[in-house]
Amino acid sequence: MQILDLLFGKPLPTSEERAEHIGPAAGIPIFGLDALSSAAYGPEAALTLLIPLGLAGIHYIVPITAAILGLLVILYFSYSQTIEAYPHGGGSFTVAGENLGYRAGLLAAAALMIDYVLTAAVGISAGVGALISAVPSLQPHTLGLCLGVLALLTLVNMRGVRETGGVFLIPTYLFLATLLIVIGVGIVRAVLAGGHPSPVVTPPHLPPVAAAVSAWLLLKVFSSGCTAMTGVEAVSNGVMAFRDPTTKNARRALTIIIALLIVLLAGIATLCRIYHIGATQPDSPQYRSVLSQLTAAVMGQGWFYYLTIGSILLVLALSANTAFADFPRLTRAIALRGYLPHVFTFRGRRLLYSWGIYVLVGLTAALLILFGGVTDRLIPLYAIGAFLAFTLSQTGMVVHWKRKGGHRARMMVNGLGAVATGITTIVVLATKFVAGAWVTALLIPLMIVLMVAVHRHYQHVAWETACHDPLSTANIHPPLVIIPMDRWSRISAKAIRFAMSISPDLQIIHIDSPDIDHGKDEIALLWDEKIAAPLRAAGRPEPQLVRLQSPYRLILAPILDYVLAAEQSHGDRHIAVLVPELVVRHWWENLLHNQRSSLLKLMLLVRGNQRIVVINIPWYQN
Amino acid sequence: MQILDLLFGKPLPTSEERAEHIGPAAGIPIFGLDALSSAAYGPEAALTLLIPLGLAGIHYIVPITAAILGLLVILYFSYSQTIEAYPHGGGSFTVAGENLGYRAGLLAAAALMIDYVLTAAVGISAGVGALISAVPSLQPHTLGLCLGVLALLTLVNMRGVRETGGVFLIPTYLFLATLLIVIGVGIVRAVLAGGHPSPVVTPPHLPPVAAAVSAWLLLKVFSSGCTAMTGVEAVSNGVMAFRDPTTKNARRALTIIIALLIVLLAGIATLCRIYHIGATQPDSPQYRSVLSQLTAAVMGQGWFYYLTIGSILLVLALSANTAFADFPRLTRAIALRGYLPHVFTFRGRRLLYSWGIYVLVGLTAALLILFGGVTDRLIPLYAIGAFLAFTLSQTGMVVHWKRKGGHRARMMVNGLGAVATGITTIVVLATKFVAGAWVTALLIPLMIVLMVAVHRHYQHVAWETACHDPLSTANIHPPLVIIPMDRWSRISAKAIRFAMSISPDLQIIHIDSPDIDHGKDEIALLWDEKIAAPLRAAGRPEPQLVRLQSPYRLILAPILDYVLAAEQSHGDRHIAVLVPELVVRHWWENLLHNQRSSLLKLMLLVRGNQRIVVINIPWYQN
Repeated sequence: MQILDLLFGKPLPTSEERAEHIGPAAGIPIFGLDALSSAAYGPEAALTLLIPLGLAGIHYIVPITAAILGLLVILYFSYSQTIEAYPHGGGSFTVAGENLGYRAGLLAAAALMIDYVLTAAVGISAGVGALISAVPSLQPHTLGLCLGVLALLTLVNMRGVRETGGVFLIPTYLFLATLLIVIGVGIVRAVLAGGHPSPVVTPPHLPPVAAAVSAWLLLKVFSSGCTAMTGVEAVSNGVMAFRDPTTKNARRALTIIIALLIVLLAGIATLCRIYHIGATQPDSPQYRSVLSQLTAAVMGQGWFYYLTIGSILLVLALSANTAFADFPRLTRAIALRGYLPHVFTFRGRRLLYSWGIYVLVGLTAALLILFGGVTDRLIPLYAIGAFLAFTLSQTGMVVHWKRKGGHRARMMVNGLGAVATGITTIVVLATKFVAGAWVTALLIPLMIVLMVAVHRHYQHVAWETACHDPLSTANIHPPLVIIPMDRWSRISAKAIRFAMSISPDLQIIHIDSPDIDHGKDEIALLWDEKIAAPLRAAGRPEPQLVRLQSPYRLILAPILDYVLAAEQSHGDRHIAVLVPELVVRHWWENLLHNQRSSLLKLMLLVRGNQRIVVINIPWYQN
Repeated sequence: MQILDLLFGKPLPTSEERAEHIGPAAGIPIFGLDALSSAAYGPEAALTLLIPLGLAGIHYIVPITAAILGLLVILYFSYSQTIEAYPHGGGSFTVAGENLGYRAGLLAAAALMIDYVLTAAVGISAGVGALISAVPSLQPHTLGLCLGVLALLTLVNMRGVRETGGVFLIPTYLFLATLLIVIGVGIVRAVLAGGHPSPVVTPPHLPPVAAAVSAWLLLKVFSSGCTAMTGVEAVSNGVMAFRDPTTKNARRALTIIIALLIVLLAGIATLCRIYHIGATQPDSPQYRSVLSQLTAAVMGQGWFYYLTIGSILLVLALSANTAFADFPRLTRAIALRGYLPHVFTFRGRRLLYSWGIYVLVGLTAALLILFGGVTDRLIPLYAIGAFLAFTLSQTGMVVHWKRKGGHRARMMVNGLGAVATGITTIVVLATKFVAGAWVTALLIPLMIVLMVAVHRHYQHVAWETACHDPLSTANIHPPLVIIPMDRWSRISAKAIRFAMSISPDLQIIHIDSPDIDHGKDEIALLWDEKIAAPLRAAGRPEPQLVRLQSPYRLILAPILDYVLAAEQSHGDRHIAVLVPELVVRHWWENLLHNQRSSLLKLMLLVRGNQRIVVINIPWYQN
C-alpha cells in the first residue's frame, strides 16, 4: 500500500469529493489543452493543402480561417447553451440521447469513445514526433517514447483531477504566453512598418503556382483546418468537475478557451499572410513547421525561439490528457445508463473512475503499438468521431429548443451548426475514407452492437432477479448435507461437526480407489470406530456413508455426479455440499497439495443449479 | 475430450492396469535404448582421447574396453541381484535409502533426477546434431528441431507404456540388426583374410604420435568410455512395468540388454583394432564418426551404409525416451515417501504418472533452450549423476548383503563395483568440473534442500491434522450467519431463506455508500416491508440489520472487518458468511459484473480463521 500511496497519492474519502473540484483557471489546462494545442497543427494542415497555389494560397488562409472561426463561434454558443441546459454534464451522448433517442445517443457515444482514444494516441505520437524532428537520433525509439509518455500521463492522472491540473498548468500557460507574445510583437512590428515588416529570419521562398484554385480544394482546406476544433466539447462533458457554482465556472472556462483559440488561430493566419509564411512540404528535408517559421520571423532564433518550440512540443504531448479527463466521464455516463459494464461507474481510491482510465490506457497503447507510434498513420482515423458527435449534439439541441418552444434564435444557431458540422463530417469521411477513415466507420457500428448487447444482458438480469414479493417463510427445511471425506482427520471431524450443527441430514461420500485406499477396508473400520460409535453413544442419528467406485481414478467427477443425482431425487430441498479445505501458511505450499477443493467448488458452481449450495470449511495450518 | 482421445488415446480404467504391462521383447527398446545407443558414442569418446598416441592408441582400446566390459559385468550382476532383492522396483533411490539411510537416498534421488533430464536433453540434441551433420542446411533450426523432437516424444509417451514400446521397437531392432551384421561380417572377413582384411573403403590415415602414454591418460580414456554405461539402471527401476512373472521378465530383459551392449562394445573395439580405425578430430572438416568409418570399411558406402547411419541417428534421438520411462517412476517413488509433491503419485487418464512427464518435458525444454540444443555444452553436466547413483546403489547393496549375512561373494562383487564406480565418479567430476560439472555439483544439494523442505511440510500437516479421537458430539451449536446484502432481490431472498433453514441467528449487513444508495434510506423502507413484516406475521425472530459506513467507497473491507470482529466477540461459535453469487450463462458475461463474490470468498479464506465458514449461494441466470 505504501508504494501505491507514493505513486498515486493517499486514498481519498468520499466526503472530500467537493474539495477535489476545480475552478476555471485550473479548468483551462485540463479541459482546454486539446483544443488550444490544435492551434499548433490546424493552420498548418490547412496551409499544407494550399501549397500548390503558391503565394496566392496564403491569401486564402485568412477568409478560410474566418469561416472556421465562424463555425467555432457557433459551436461556442451551442455548447454554452448546452452547459446551461445540462448542468450535470451535457456531452453529445446525453444531449443526443435525450433529444434524438437512445440510438442517436449510442452513435454519439461510440463516435466519442473512438475519438478520445485517438486524441490520446495522436497527441502522444505528435508530441513524440515533434521531439524526434528536433532530436533525430531518437527516431528508432519512437514507439518506446510514446509508451513512456503514456505511462507518465497515466501516473499523473491516477493521482486525481486536482494534481493533474497542477502538473499541466505551467506548460499550458507557457505555451499560451509565448504564442501570444509572438502574435502581439508580430502585429506591433507590422503596424510600425506600415503593414510590410521585414522578418528577422526570412522564411523559405514559396513554391511556384502548380494548380488553380477550386471550390473542392477550398472545402478540403476548410475541413483540414477544422481539426483545430476537436476538443471543444470537453468542457460541457465535464461540468461536474468544476467548483460551485459549476455552470458559471464551466461557462467561464469555455469562454476563455474559445477566446484564446480564436486569438491564436486569427493571429497565426494574419501573421502568415503579412510575413508571407506558407507550409513546407512534409517529409522533405527542407520541412519547417509553420509556427517555427513564424516565431523565427518575428522574434529571431534566440532563446525565446527555443522556449516557444519547447512549450509547443510539451503541450502537444500533454493534449492527450484531455482524453484522460473525458473518456472516464463518458464511459461512466454510458455505464450509468446500462450500456457499458458497471465497473465504469465505480470511483477508485483517488475519487476517479479508475476503470475508464485503465481501458483508455489499454486501447491507446494498443493503437500506438499497432500504428508504430506514427501520427501520419493515425490521422485518417481521427476527427470523424468528433464531427459526428458535434452534429448529433447540435441536432439534439435543435430538438431541445423546439420542445421547450419560443427559442427560434437559439434553434437557428444550433441548426446552422448542425448543418455546417454535418457537411464537415461528410467531407472528412469522403476525403479520408480509403486512407483509414473506414476503420472508424466500421468500429462505430461494432461498438453500438456491443453496447446494445451489454444493455440487453443487464435488463435480462434485472428482470430475472427483481423480487416484488416480501420474504416467504413457507417451506423452510434444513438442507441435505453432503461431505466428501478421504480419511479421518481433524479436518473431516470439523466438517462433520459443522454439518451436524446446521442439519440432521448427513451423507458422507468416500471414493474407493486403489490409488488412494492402500488397505482396502480402512474406511469401514474407521467409520464404525470414529464416527458411528460415538454418535450411537450420544443417541444421535448416524450419517449415511456412501461409497463410490472410480474405475478411471477420478475423484471429483463421481462426487459431482452423485450430488447432481441427489439433487434430482430430493424434490424441493437444498443440497449443501460441504468442502473442507486446507489453507497453508505460504502460497508456494499450495503446490504441494492437490487443488481438489478449489476444483470441486468451481465444478459445483459451473455444473450446479439453484438448489445446490457450497459450504467451504477452511482448515488453517498453524 | 475428442481431441484428447485422438492425441493421447482413450482413458484407461484402473482395472486394465495389468494389460498395460510388457514382456522382455518390448522391454528392450523401452528400458535398453539409452544403454544400447551409448555404443554409438562411448567407444568414440574413448578413441578421441587416444588420438595423440597415433597408431599405438588403437591398441590400447581393446584392453580399456575389456576393463569397461568387466565393470559392466559387475554392474550386471549387481543390478540382477537388485531386481531379485527389490521386486517392486529397486532404483538407486530405494536401495541407497533403505540401506544407507534417507540422506543417501535423497542424494541418489537428486543425482538421478538431474541425470534423467540430461539423458532426455543429450539424447535429443545428439540425434538432432547427427541429423544436422548429415543435412548441414538444417543448422539454423537446431533448437526448433530439438523442441519438435521433444514434442513428438511427449505425444508418443502420453499414450502410455505399451504404445511407446511399439513405436520404438522397429528403430531399436534395426539399429541392433545393422550393427550386429557389420560386426559379424567384419569378423568373418578378418578371419577369412587371416587377420589382415583389406577395407572396402579405406579409413583416413591415423595421425603421427604426438604424446606419450600415461596412467592418467588411460584413466581418462576409461572414464570417457564409461559414458557407454549410462542407462544400465533403467530396468531395475522399472521392474513393475513388466508382465508377470515380473522379476523373471525384468532380469531377462536386463540380461539381453547387457549382453547386446557387450557384443556391440567388444565388436566395435576389436574391429577398430583390426581395420586400423581411430577417432578423427571433432570440429575438423575431415571429421568422420567411428561407426561411419567402420561401416564403410566393412560394408562399403552402399544402401546398407545409409540404412545403418540412419538407424543410429534415429536411435540416438529416441534414447531420450528412457528418461520418459524412468523419470516419472522415480519422482513417484520419491513422492510416495513424501519428499516430492503428491501429484507425482497420481496416474492420469492413460495410467501414467502424468505430472512426472510434465515436469520432465518442462525441464528438458528449459535445458535445451538454455544451451541452444548443442550437445557439446550439455555433456559436461552429464554422467556424474549416473555414476554417483551407481556408487550409492552398490554401496547400499553391500550393506544389504551384510545385514542378511552369509553373502560374502555377492558383497565382494558389489563392493568392487562400488569402488570402481566411486573412482569413476571422482575422475569424471575432476576432469569436467570447470567445463560444467559444477552446475550438477551445485544442483544436487539444492534439490536435496528442496526435498527436505517438502517432506517437513507434509510431516507438519500430517501431524497437525491427525485425529486419534473419535468424533466429539459436545457443544454443537448452530452458527451465527452473516449475509451481505446490497438490495432486495430474488438472490437475497434465496440467501435469507437458506440462512433461516440452517440457523436461527442471522445478521444482514448493508454498506451505506453514496455511490450505491442513491435514495439514502431505501434500505430501511425495504427492510421493514420485505423482511421484517412477513417474519413478524409468521411469528419468527427478526434478523439483525447491520448498517456499515464506508468513507473510502470500499465494499469488501468493511464486511471483512465486521466478520473478523464478530468472530472475536462470539466465543466458541462458528461464523458462517453467506455469499450470494450470480452465475451468468456465458463466461464473457462475467466481465459485466463485478467479481465481489469471488473476491469476498478469497479474502475470507486468506484472512479468516478456523471458526469462519463461507457458504456460497449461487443464483443461476436462466
